[in-house]
Amino acid sequence: MASGQDVRAPDVASDATLRARAARVLPWSDGLYGHMGVRGLPAGFPQFHERGDGPLVWDVDGNEYVDLMCSWGPMVLGHHHPIVDEAARDQARRGDALNGPTAAMVELAELLAATADGAAWSMFTKNGTDATTVSVMIARAATQRRYVLAAQGAYHGSAPWCTPRPDGTIFEDRAALEYFEFNDLTTVRAAIARCDADIAAIIVSPFKHDAGFDQELVDQRFASGLRELCDRVGAVLIIDDVRAGFRLDLRGSWAPLGVEPDLTARGKAMGNGHAISAVTGVEALREAATRIYATGSYWYGAVAMAAAAATIKVLRDDDGIEKMHAAGRQLRAGMARQAATHRLAIRQTGPVQMPYLTFRGDVDRQRLSLFAQEALRGGVFLHPAHNWFLSTAHDEAVIDRVLDATDRAFAAVAQQLGPNVEGSAVAR
Amino acid sequence: MASGQDVRAPDVASDATLRARAARVLPWSDGLYGHMGVRGLPAGFPQFHERGDGPLVWDVDGNEYVDLMCSWGPMVLGHHHPIVDEAARDQARRGDALNGPTAAMVELAELLAATADGAAWSMFTKNGTDATTVSVMIARAATQRRYVLAAQGAYHGSAPWCTPRPDGTIFEDRAALEYFEFNDLTTVRAAIARCDADIAAIIVSPFKHDAGFDQELVDQRFASGLRELCDRVGAVLIIDDVRAGFRLDLRGSWAPLGVEPDLTARGKAMGNGHAISAVTGVEALREAATRIYATGSYWYGAVAMAAAAATIKVLRDDDGIEKMHAAGRQLRAGMARQAATHRLAIRQTGPVQMPYLTFRGDVDRQRLSLFAQEALRGGVFLHPAHNWFLSTAHDEAVIDRVLDATDRAFAAVAQQLGPNVEGSAVAR
Repeated sequence: MASGQDVRAPDVASDATLRARAARVLPWSDGLYGHMGVRGLPAGFPQFHERGDGPLVWDVDGNEYVDLMCSWGPMVLGHHHPIVDEAARDQARRGDALNGPTAAMVELAELLAATADGAAWSMFTKNGTDATTVSVMIARAATQRRYVLAAQGAYHGSAPWCTPRPDGTIFEDRAALEYFEFNDLTTVRAAIARCDADIAAIIVSPFKHDAGFDQELVDQRFASGLRELCDRVGAVLIIDDVRAGFRLDLRGSWAPLGVEPDLTARGKAMGNGHAISAVTGVEALREAATRIYATGSYWYGAVAMAAAAATIKVLRDDDGIEKMHAAGRQLRAGMARQAATHRLAIRQTGPVQMPYLTFRGDVDRQRLSLFAQEALRGGVFLHPAHNWFLSTAHDEAVIDRVLDATDRAFAAVAQQLGPNVEGSAVAR
Repeated sequence: MASGQDVRAPDVASDATLRARAARVLPWSDGLYGHMGVRGLPAGFPQFHERGDGPLVWDVDGNEYVDLMCSWGPMVLGHHHPIVDEAARDQARRGDALNGPTAAMVELAELLAATADGAAWSMFTKNGTDATTVSVMIARAATQRRYVLAAQGAYHGSAPWCTPRPDGTIFEDRAALEYFEFNDLTTVRAAIARCDADIAAIIVSPFKHDAGFDQELVDQRFASGLRELCDRVGAVLIIDDVRAGFRLDLRGSWAPLGVEPDLTARGKAMGNGHAISAVTGVEALREAATRIYATGSYWYGAVAMAAAAATIKVLRDDDGIEKMHAAGRQLRAGMARQAATHRLAIRQTGPVQMPYLTFRGDVDRQRLSLFAQEALRGGVFLHPAHNWFLSTAHDEAVIDRVLDATDRAFAAVAQQLGPNVEGSAVAR
C-alpha cells in the first residue's frame, strides 16, 4: 500500500481545530448532521477525514485505518480504484453536467438491463432517498392507489415520508403508510387488511439492517410471500437495495431467492463513491415511470454514470461479489475464534460482506463501544451501531490486519469488563 | 477557444442511434425524464451531448453551439474553468466520499458565512429539491407549525410536495400548502388567513421564473412585505435561490433589496456543474436545524465542496456578477435592436443574467419555436420555454457571435411568419 504522503495537503488542520471551526459555521456544536456525525460515538473517533487508498483511510490527524465502513457503503472496490478513477477522469475531461445526457447514460442503463434483474429500464438519481421516493411515486402512478407498506423500523431514506426522526415532519407525511414486521407475513396481511386494498406498494430491504440492532437475513418464505401478496392485491413490490445492492448479488439482492421485484432502488456501491443512485423497473411499469415528474440539476451528470458503469464491470469481470464474500467469511470465522478464546459471547449477523457484531447481554452497549474504541486504536475503523461494509480491496492480508486489531480489542473487552459466556461470574 | 477534437471519444454514437438505444433501456420512447428531455422542443434539438469548453458545447453529432443554457444553470464560470477543475482534481486525488467530512466542508461553510447574507450556518445537500425540502423541515421544526405558503405556479423542486405534475402524488403531499400570487401581498394575507396562523414558512423565488411564462422581477414592496408578514405571524422566510443564486448577487438575490431571509436554498451555480446544493440559515434557526434528520450517502462528498469554494472565490475575485450583467445588457440591447429592425414585437424579461424572450401575441409559441430552431441552426443553444443562463465565459465576442445568430433567427421569423408590430397587416 502506498503511503501516499505526497498527496496529503500541506496545511491540513487538526480534527480538534476543524471541530471548533465547524461549530461556528455548521449547525451542530457537537458534531455534524446526518449519519456521519460522531457525537454518539465513543471518544477517539475522528470527525474529519483526509483521504483513502484501497482498503485504507486516513483522518486529518494523519492516523491510518483499515476502512471497515467503506464510506458507509459506496466504496465497493476500495478507494481510488484505478479503472473507476480513469473512467471518471476521462468523462470529466469531456463533460459532466451538460444541457442533457451523454452516451454514458445509455451505456449505464444498457449495462444494468444486461446485469440486473427487473431492470428493463432505469432512471438515474443522486441520493438513495431519491431512488426510494421516485419508486413510491411510480408505484402510485401505476396503481392509482394510496398506501405504501414498509417494515417497522426500516430505513428507506430521510425525506419527510421516511426519515427516522419526526422533527420537521407533519402527520400527513406518513398518513398513507402502514407498517409490518420484517420476516412476518401475518403482520403484512394485517397491514393489507387495514388499507382496504388501496395499496400501491410494499417497500422492503433485502434483509433487516436497521441501525443499532442485530441484522436479520430474509426468510425465503417471507420474500416469496411478499411477491405473492403483491401479485394478489395488485401492488408493486419495491426492493430498497440502496444499502446492500452490488455487494450481495449483481442481479439484485433477492435474485438468489428467485424473487423478482417490480422496482428496485439502487445506490451507494453502484458508483464506488461517485454520487449516483437509480430506480430500475420491469416492463409493466415503464408507462407509469413516464408519467411522474422527477428531476434534478445533476441527475444526468455523466461522470458518476461513467464511474458506475466502470464499477459494475469491474465487479462483474473480477468476481467482486465472491471476493467480498471470501473476505467476509475470513473475518467472521476469525472473530468467532477470537471471541471464544477471550470467553466473550458475540453475535455476528447479516451477510458476511456487510458484517455486524454485538455482544450478548450488552444492553447499554458498553462492550461494543469499548470494542469499537479499541479497534480504532488498533487501526481499524468500524462503527458500533451500524453494519460495516467490505470491499474487493479487503484481501486476505488486509483481513489478517483487521483480525490482529480485533483480537486486541476483544482482549481489552474481556480484561476491562470481564467475560460474558455462560457460567461466567461476571456475565451481563 | 480550443477546438478540443482531441478529447472527443473516438466511438461516439450519433444522437439518432443513442435515442433508439435509450428508448429500450430508459422509460421514455420519445425523449428522457425530467427537464432535460427534448420531446416538447422543435425538431433539430439534440438529445445527447458530448462536451463543453468555456461558453461552448458540442452535441454527440459534433455540432458546436454557444451555450445559453449553461447546463440549466450550473455552469456559471463556463465549462472546464481551470481553477475549479484543478480544485476538484486536487480534492479527488485525496478523497471524495469518505467516512465523514473533510476540511473542504468547513472551508465552504466559512466562505458562505463570509460571503452570503443569512448564512450563519450551512448544510450541504445534493439536489435543489433537497435544499428546499430540508428548509421546509427546519421551518416546521422551529415553529412547530404545519402550513407552508408558496407562489402559485412556482417551481421549488420535484419531490411529491412540490413537483409540478400530480401523477404519483397523493392529496396529503400538499395538504399543508397554501398558495399566493407572486408580487401580490393581498393574496399572501388571504393565504395566511386561510391557515389560521398555523404557518411554518413562506417559500418564495427571488423573482418569478416559472417555466413557459415571461419572467417577472420582484417588487420591492412585495419583498419587504413578505419579511414583515413573516415577522408578524412568526413564520420563517425561505428564499428558494436555487435557480438564481450566485448569478444575481453573491450575498443572495434579495440582498440588493435589503431583505434578509431566514433560510436560503442554494444550488445550481454554486459548484459550476459539480453536484452540490445547500441550505443556509440565520442564527435563530440553528437549533431547529440540529433537530431534523436529513442526510445522504454523498452529502459530505468533498470534491463538490472544493469545487464550490473555488467557484464562489472566482466569482468574488473576478467580479463575476458584473461580467454576467454586462454580457446580459449587451445581449438584451442587441436583441431589442434586431427585433425592431425586423418589425418584431418582443418582450425580454427577468434579470439580464438570466435572459428570456417571448414574441407578442405568440399564443401558440410558433414564433418562439421557430426562433429557437433558427438560433440552434445558427449555432446558439437556447430554450424556447425556459429562461436562459449566462456565465462569466460569455464575453463580448461570444455575445457578438450569439447576436449574429439571433439576427438571422429574427429575420427568419419575420420572413416566414411576418412582422407582428402595431399596424402590421399580419400582426397576430
